[in-house]
Amino acid sequence: MLYSILLGKTTKQTPKDETSINAQLLIRGGFVQKEMAGVYAFLPLGYRILQKVVQIIREEMNAIDGQELHLGALQDPDVWAKTDRWSDEVIDVWFKTKLQSGTEIGLATTHEEPLSQIMTNYVQSYRDLPMYVYQFQTKFRNELRARSGLLRTREFLMKDLYSFNKDQKGLDDYYEKAIKAYHKVFDRVGIGDQTYTTFASGGPFSKFSHEFQTVCENGEDVIYLDEGKKIGINKEVLTDDVLEELGINKDDLKEVNASEVGNIFKLGTKYSAPLGLMYTDENGESKPVVMGSYGIGPARVMATVVELFNDENGIIWPESISPYKVHLVGLNLEDKDVKDKATKLYQKLQDENVEVLFDDREKVTSGEKFADADLIGIPHRIVVSKQTEDKVEYKKRDQNKASLLSVEELLEKLS
Amino acid sequence: MLYSILLGKTTKQTPKDETSINAQLLIRGGFVQKEMAGVYAFLPLGYRILQKVVQIIREEMNAIDGQELHLGALQDPDVWAKTDRWSDEVIDVWFKTKLQSGTEIGLATTHEEPLSQIMTNYVQSYRDLPMYVYQFQTKFRNELRARSGLLRTREFLMKDLYSFNKDQKGLDDYYEKAIKAYHKVFDRVGIGDQTYTTFASGGPFSKFSHEFQTVCENGEDVIYLDEGKKIGINKEVLTDDVLEELGINKDDLKEVNASEVGNIFKLGTKYSAPLGLMYTDENGESKPVVMGSYGIGPARVMATVVELFNDENGIIWPESISPYKVHLVGLNLEDKDVKDKATKLYQKLQDENVEVLFDDREKVTSGEKFADADLIGIPHRIVVSKQTEDKVEYKKRDQNKASLLSVEELLEKLS
Repeated sequence: MLYSILLGKTTKQTPKDETSINAQLLIRGGFVQKEMAGVYAFLPLGYRILQKVVQIIREEMNAIDGQELHLGALQDPDVWAKTDRWSDEVIDVWFKTKLQSGTEIGLATTHEEPLSQIMTNYVQSYRDLPMYVYQFQTKFRNELRARSGLLRTREFLMKDLYSFNKDQKGLDDYYEKAIKAYHKVFDRVGIGDQTYTTFASGGPFSKFSHEFQTVCENGEDVIYLDEGKKIGINKEVLTDDVLEELGINKDDLKEVNASEVGNIFKLGTKYSAPLGLMYTDENGESKPVVMGSYGIGPARVMATVVELFNDENGIIWPESISPYKVHLVGLNLEDKDVKDKATKLYQKLQDENVEVLFDDREKVTSGEKFADADLIGIPHRIVVSKQTEDKVEYKKRDQNKASLLSVEELLEKLS
Repeated sequence: MLYSILLGKTTKQTPKDETSINAQLLIRGGFVQKEMAGVYAFLPLGYRILQKVVQIIREEMNAIDGQELHLGALQDPDVWAKTDRWSDEVIDVWFKTKLQSGTEIGLATTHEEPLSQIMTNYVQSYRDLPMYVYQFQTKFRNELRARSGLLRTREFLMKDLYSFNKDQKGLDDYYEKAIKAYHKVFDRVGIGDQTYTTFASGGPFSKFSHEFQTVCENGEDVIYLDEGKKIGINKEVLTDDVLEELGINKDDLKEVNASEVGNIFKLGTKYSAPLGLMYTDENGESKPVVMGSYGIGPARVMATVVELFNDENGIIWPESISPYKVHLVGLNLEDKDVKDKATKLYQKLQDENVEVLFDDREKVTSGEKFADADLIGIPHRIVVSKQTEDKVEYKKRDQNKASLLSVEELLEKLS
């Protein structure tokens, strides 16, 4: 991609209305724009990152037998009435709207109800189970205050997977598989070391639910960590009984701020029973399906990465989700020879399937170009200029030392 | 994919509340489920088709320099007030909702306003133009009546591209490019022969807009075709003057029903001027950006394909958007040898990167399996049974003749 024609340039001003580092850097870098409080547009650079996070999650959900589908955002109140969750007092972040007929409908905050309703058409017998389905779908939540930039918004993409099993054992086994898959996701996006499986309060069907909390200074949550055991505990379940059950010594706990990048719940029959999602077991007996739900917010993951990996000059993207692998900076481009050389390298890198952002702007100083490259935060920076002659200058975003390489050496290093 | 575990099986009943062929067949085939009037869930088979249509559109939009981004669905009334389109009298399909503060906000029916608003941050000089951006984003339209199945829904994915040029000439040139790109899309999804560029009414900045109308019995629109010239004319512009301008003889026109699968508009400065999307030209003069907009609804394309390509037994998917390339039907699977053979072929096809749906169900009759294969409509059907011995039976969905092939011959045929 040529930077000269890319929509979404860097800006020096820190947006006045943003207090969070993630929103400040993502807006300044040209990744996102705020449309209104709690609503962000993803510009091409930001959308590439979001899609890379999505693809990593998709691969890991497919690996645990997830089938991808896509449900509607508009919600039929009759379905939610069955579980008593239509009321604003039960779900306090509903957005409601009206059909022209006057009928009130809602915007999905989550999708347990409509999916369970659909599943009643396809699950009759124990032979139809287990079933694991997921989607990437926008959730709408009427948050009283939208804050923390992209960590908490009123409209956001969510990967929500739902498991449908015959019994508790099926659910329990899948739940453990999902925990492992989640850690693979967080490892792959670069936040694995900082992300802790965290015990949180459960519900009628399980003592605990689990959050995936990434330790980060500006996270909205406070959790208690046993770093040795790599376990986190949410404040709401921090009791002596729970500590004993988990074999944790209170003195080993450390209070930290964290950002919740995922959460999983054992739902049991909480939704299946009222919605009539039943199956006939091997003995001809009718039973409610046993469910679980598993969420990750790709944009919150992206924002958490920014909170973790930045310095005074900008963002430092992990390579797995960087919008491009290489930031090619062309200097002295008014010199035709240099321009040809840079353009040829840009072409060469693309031919080799290296994703490259080429700063091909003329009449922009080298200082500005380097500052932009640091702000944008692509992991590999390459400079072509008069000084580099028949070589190129190579530097990693998170290191200070640059080196002169031949094109062959560069390709070797990038491969 | 194993059909036994796929979410979304076929059903024999025609849904009572659906009068359109597309919805009937898509629901019966297990591609979609109706959630409420005008809202459909895409089950895994249906979602695969939708994603294939999306990918074809994406490739063609990238080929005409489109940059992909993603805007919010929630809409700030202040932005729409600038173009006087916030009122329900101007846009009569708004869904409106409220923040907890009481502020009314909307759900996007289209995105000219918020995108133009964002662009004001990035377009200052003629050097920042042209710019072409697009998204696949859900539109919400509060249709009085949701009808015609997936041809007109209250919530649907739309590809909307917007062009930003310095002048009318830039817009005109890009507009012609977009027409060609659109025809490539319709050719690739298999409806090119039936799809006509159709003259429709323009606006203050152009005499005409253009629709892409696919001739189809149950289409919602009526158009007038000159088949020789491959031109369609919308009723609203069917005047003697227009016919003369287009060099068309009234007697050559044929009245047909059609489904509008795309539309493009020259917007001129209709939105840029009121939203302050201005640039400074080569002479230092401030001018409004000249815009165009270009829409395609992927689900409507999918539904139109179903309307066009079906017979009394079900759907006949074009290979380019079929959920799988091959439908492998295993018969006599209680026989271990046959089951092994079928399973081995399933594995082999996957190893060769052939997308395959394997009907691995036991205790289902061959008649049922063939009926399901016809209903689902995957173009290549392969049968492995006791009778086929060391060969396989191969049949195309749209042909009656089956032939016995060796596995090598089959792979040859599929490649």
